[in-house]
Order: sequence, then C-alpha cells, then structure tokens
Amino acid sequence: MNTAQAQLGAVLSAGGAALARLLERTESRLALVAESHGAELGAHARGTLAAGGKRLRPVLVFLCGQGDDDRLVAAGAAVELLHMATLVHDDVLDAAELRRGRPTVFASAGRPAATATGDLLFSRAFAELAATGSEEAVRALSTASSALARGELMQRADAWDEHVTPERYLERCRLKTASLFEASCRLGALFGGRPDLAGALGGFGEQVGLAFQMLDDVLDVSGPPERTGKPRGADLLDGTVTLPLILARRVDPSLPGSVTTVDEAAAASDRITATGVLEEARTQALAHVAEAKESLARLDLSKERLHALSLVADGVVERYA
Amino acid sequence: MNTAQAQLGAVLSAGGAALARLLERTESRLALVAESHGAELGAHARGTLAAGGKRLRPVLVFLCGQGDDDRLVAAGAAVELLHMATLVHDDVLDAAELRRGRPTVFASAGRPAATATGDLLFSRAFAELAATGSEEAVRALSTASSALARGELMQRADAWDEHVTPERYLERCRLKTASLFEASCRLGALFGGRPDLAGALGGFGEQVGLAFQMLDDVLDVSGPPERTGKPRGADLLDGTVTLPLILARRVDPSLPGSVTTVDEAAAASDRITATGVLEEARTQALAHVAEAKESLARLDLSKERLHALSLVADGVVERYA
Repeated sequence: MNTAQAQLGAVLSAGGAALARLLERTESRLALVAESHGAELGAHARGTLAAGGKRLRPVLVFLCGQGDDDRLVAAGAAVELLHMATLVHDDVLDAAELRRGRPTVFASAGRPAATATGDLLFSRAFAELAATGSEEAVRALSTASSALARGELMQRADAWDEHVTPERYLERCRLKTASLFEASCRLGALFGGRPDLAGALGGFGEQVGLAFQMLDDVLDVSGPPERTGKPRGADLLDGTVTLPLILARRVDPSLPGSVTTVDEAAAASDRITATGVLEEARTQALAHVAEAKESLARLDLSKERLHALSLVADGVVERYA
Repeated sequence: MNTAQAQLGAVLSAGGAALARLLERTESRLALVAESHGAELGAHARGTLAAGGKRLRPVLVFLCGQGDDDRLVAAGAAVELLHMATLVHDDVLDAAELRRGRPTVFASAGRPAATATGDLLFSRAFAELAATGSEEAVRALSTASSALARGELMQRADAWDEHVTPERYLERCRLKTASLFEASCRLGALFGGRPDLAGALGGFGEQVGLAFQMLDDVLDVSGPPERTGKPRGADLLDGTVTLPLILARRVDPSLPGSVTTVDEAAAASDRITATGVLEEARTQALAHVAEAKESLARLDLSKERLHALSLVADGVVERYA
C-alpha cells in the first residue's frame, strides 16, 4: 500500500461507515448513468466510470455534508461526472492512449466518439444535480464547469509562453482545479445540513485544490515516473508552464522553453530540480494547505468532521511526500 | 431576399414587436456571455455568438411563451448556447474551416481552444438556465443535451453502415435535432405562462425538429450548393447515412457505400435523385409538419399565437421549396 492509499484509508476510516455507504451509493449511481444512455455510450462511458480513481471530489462532498440525503449522492455523482468529462476531453486533445492503465475513450473509440462521450458526461452531471431541485447547486456546478473550461483555454493559450507570471499560473490552478474542489465542498455543505457554511467550506476546498494542483506540478518534475504514472517533465513536453519552470527560469535563464523528447524532458526536469526551486514551489503549496486547515478552526463543526477534513488537506501533502 | 428569409420575416411580423424585443434581449445576453469569460474565451466565443444564424430555437421559445419574463430570455439564450456548443464541437470533429462564411473557432484557434470553447458554451447554457431557479427547466435542457450527444455518438457509430434502418435514422434525427426543438418549446411554455402546455408544445417542437432534420438531409442531396452553402452530398462524404440514401439503396443497390471526392459526392447525389426517392423522403418529412400543425389545433391558445407557430412549421418546409 502506498502513502496515498494509506492516507485515503485514514480519511475513509475517519469518515466511518456513513462515508463508505455514500461512496457505494455514488458508484451505483455512476454505473446507472453509464447503463442508461444506449449501446454507443454504454461501452465508452462504462470504461471511463469504472476506471475509478480516488473519487476525491465526492469524498469532499460527503465530508462537508452530514446525513445521507439522496441529494448528497447526486452531488457526489455530479462532480465526478464533470471531472470525468474534462478528463475525456483532455485525452482527446492530448491524443492520450492510456489513463489509469486503461485505454482512453479516445484510443478505443476515436476522436468523435470521445468528444461526444465527454459532452454527454457534462450533460449528465447537470442532469444529476438538476434532479435535486436546487438552483444554488446547479449554479455552483456551472460556475465550476465554466472555470474548468476557462482554465483549459488559458493553459493552451499560455503554452510555451516564457512570460507567464506566478500570479497567472495561480489563477490557472484556481480555474482548472480548485474551482471544482470548491464546488464539491459547497455542495456538501448545501445538502449536508450546513448551507450556512457553504461559502466557508467552499473556501477550504479552494485552498486544498490549489495545493493539490501545485504539488501535482512539482511531482511532474520530481517524479518518479513509477509513482506518477507519466514520464518526468510531461508538462514540459506539452508546453504547460508551471510554477517550478517559472521559478527555475529566474535562476537559470538558459532553461529550454520547449522539449520534444522524453529524454529532453527528463534532462530539463533535472536542471529545474538542480536550481533548488522545487522546495520553494512546495512551500507555496503548503501555505495553501495551512490556510485550508486554519480556516477549519473557525468553523462550528463537530470534532470528528474537522478531523476528517483536516486529514483530506494533509492527504494532498502526503501525495507529495 | 430568399424564401427562408421571407419566411422568417413572416414569423417575426406575426410575433410582432414583443418577439423582436425578446430576440434583441437575447442578443444582448449572448454578447454579455461572450464578454464575461476572460480574454481567451472572449475572442473565440464572440465570433461564434456574433455569427448569428436564424436563432430558430430562441424563436421557438418565445412563440411558445407569452409575456416578457426574464426567464424567457434566459431560456432563449440557453438553447442557443447549447446549439452553438454542439456546432463548435462538430466543427472540431469535421476539421471545418468555415461556418456561415466565417472562420470556425477550430480554424482560428485550433483544436484545444475550440474544444474548451465548446465546453464553456455548454456550461454557460446551464448557468443561464440555473439562474431561473427552475428545476424542471434545467432538467429539460440536460435531457436535450444528453440526447444531442447520444445522437452525435450514434451518427459516428453508424457512419458508412449500409444496414442503418429508416427507424434508426429517425431515432437519430430525434436525438440530434428534434430534442432541442422540443426543449425550446417546452421552456417557452414553462416560462411563458403556460406550464400546462409544456408537454403538448414540446411535442409540437419535436415534430417540427424531425421535419427540419429530414428536409435538411434531402437538401444535402438536392442542393444547390449556392443555397445550402456546402457541396452536394456532404453527408455522403462524411459517411452520414440519411433517409435518401437508405431509400435509394433499395432501388439501386449498386450505389456506392462511400465517396471520397466532391465530384463523386455530386455524382452519387445525382444517382440518388434519379431513383425518385427524394420525393418519398420529402413526403415523410411533410407528414411530421402536418402532425405538428394538427397538434396545434387541439391547443387552447390565442389565434395569433397559433398562427405564428403554424408559420414556423411552414417555415421548415419553405427552406426546402
């Protein structure tokens, strides 16, 4: 069992049987979505949805809520569906063959089917949430969904750009990752009996999401590949300008603006690491974890719930350790 | 002024100043959406949204509703945004350079930006509708959105397939076109003071949508290109099996299953036309127009409104005439 799995185990045990049951219901819900859209989608969506992953966003929904309201399950399914929709489209754009060790929809069914599958997963995310009857919830999801698309646009617009600032990088992390973490927490609060804390818990989720993305970008440079499942410097290969590269260029302006082979990416990753900036990037990320945990202290929530949320924030760091 | 424009003019004048004002407010709303998503999207979305088109789906919303409720405008903007999202993604899949005489987002900004722009337009469609606070409305849009994606998947799955039945073709038309016409009419009824007629007006919209797609598929074979803006037999070129081809193969089994050049597509179109099946395909489409108009007769609506809706149904035929 690796560290990340151990950490998820700790979260699950802190969340207790209630969390486990909500996650099971979410799986059933996702399976039903995959079954209910005809033969064409069935095959594509089933593979995507069954491939699993950590279900981190649903976990956030459930830890920010309480009780076992069907609407919590709907929200958990919705945020996971939206996340998957973006993954399916990302795989199309990156012409990615594998994700989590399985062939992507793009690889098995081609570009058109994968684009339509992503569109359908988008639609189902909103359909799940619409069924709750909550305008505020649908608005939270659509705000996040817009942000994800804007983040993706920004990432592609900034590709290979040597002038991306740390501020702009942070804004991109907020759009492409933190926005859905924020929405997940907000939805949990809304449907879990604490609508008064929707803003505060959303803020917690945003900070966790920022740290998650920033540490992910550090991992991309530091690897090791057997842990991350991708070659070191994958971001460099597709032109994504991340904080480690931005900071490293200040120290070593001769760092290449682009690389084209896995070996060049590994070599550039070594040079970035040699500048010592990974520590700085990690420190900046940890500051967001700390802010997330501090914000918890101000919340009127049970000790158990605060403990579980705190474990999630720590889990983001553990991924890196 | 061509026939289609004349027909739209008739609809607009039947709808009167109220319809014109609602359409203007929809344009303002769409412009605002394009402005409010950062510089990256701005450029891409503005072009798409400004390119116009007939705004047929918003017109359906407004003719099925009454009054000038902001929610009607939100619904009009939402159905147009959803329609555009699918067009932007279709253009990516078809690597289309031009739409309505303008460069597509795909052509001007590339595949990644166009995919993200489509995703964003999807999200904004739901955001517009979520703001109305109506669960039923969001559900209607998400049902339509799922159907559009399923229709697209079905079309790609059936590409070049000689065994597509007329029934399967009709189901595809229902999914990829009629579903959004249906939702437009349903939303108009919901927000236009006649929620009791949402189902009936939705049914009207569905029949109009079926006829619209079926006649579009006849036009693809009959042309002329200067009228349709695309080469004759464009569907044959991309493998889309439509009713004219299905019917023509019964008469002339030696018809090619695929063509690869514009000249071959024109020649195959001539052969389909020579079988005489276009008349049969047109008759089947007109049956849906007739059914739509008959369904109106049963509705408790003002004479003016019935007249305007009837003109829209006729407008679908006029496109063909």
